[in-house]
Amino acid sequence: MKLYISALVLLLVPILATGHDVPCGVDQAIRSIVDEHTSNLVLECTYITDLSIYASCPSGFTAFSCSCGKGCGSWDIQTPNKCHCQCPDVDWALVSCCKITALYI
Amino acid sequence: MKLYISALVLLLVPILATGHDVPCGVDQAIRSIVDEHTSNLVLECTYITDLSIYASCPSGFTAFSCSCGKGCGSWDIQTPNKCHCQCPDVDWALVSCCKITALYI
Amino acid sequence: MKLYISALVLLLVPILATGHDVPCGVDQAIRSIVDEHTSNLVLECTYITDLSIYASCPSGFTAFSCSCGKGCGSWDIQTPNKCHCQCPDVDWALVSCCKITALYI
Repeated sequence: MKLYISALVLLLVPILATGHDVPCGVDQAIRSIVDEHTSNLVLECTYITDLSIYASCPSGFTAFSCSCGKGCGSWDIQTPNKCHCQCPDVDWALVSCCKITALYI
Repeated sequence: MKLYISALVLLLVPILATGHDVPCGVDQAIRSIVDEHTSNLVLECTYITDLSIYASCPSGFTAFSCSCGKGCGSWDIQTPNKCHCQCPDVDWALVSCCKITALYI
Repeated sequence: MKLYISALVLLLVPILATGHDVPCGVDQAIRSIVDEHTSNLVLECTYITDLSIYASCPSGFTAFSCSCGKGCGSWDIQTPNKCHCQCPDVDWALVSCCKITALYI
């Protein structure tokens, strides 16, 4: 009986020990993976020009700013993500479009 | 005695096997949850207009660009997140304000 | 024999229970850490002025918008992250540069 109990203890101790150890290692692993992923997040931007008073972002991108022909600095952003140049005779519009993207090396 | 040992082995083998398997499954789970969360991050923007030479972002947002009345394209961004239109006689200012937000579906 | 089996069951039940419990606790931990990290992500912006028709972002930043001297609102963004003011006689250029950064409190 002593032999059985000893064998049982010898077998169970490492399992219990490992059982207690797992969450700590996992916690480190979570933090490391989360850090790695969030440090890979970058702002991806594209700039679209159209020969009109409007310029629109591609799907998935958000409009941040506009540039207009004829030196015009008066613009607004209309839903969804479309630049509108307000001065008369503007011959082109540019929209600055960005999104969050994950950079996988 | 043989019966006890057999029973013990039969009971312990799956536990040990599972014990070794957990970190791998956990690792997959971490990567999957992190991917899911980071792919939910989007740029939320709002555009604030004020009938003056200044326009300010709401709390929590960052100023990215300004637009000004009278066609003016000369501006600067003052702390904290306030657009300032520099041309004389400017009658309105617009500020483009964005922040990172999590999109929960 | 009954005693051994009872002892074995008493010892194994918590291990098996813990074994099943670990993934749930880990899952919660992952979600909590990921949420904490992603809620710490902010847009860090800087605005660079240069006394020329060009202004460039520091390394690691992305160009979102430009402002130009002489009221000029016509600009474009050249690779990599450089503002170009297009009107004649522009005496300064400003570029709005941002990146994603983790805010550790």
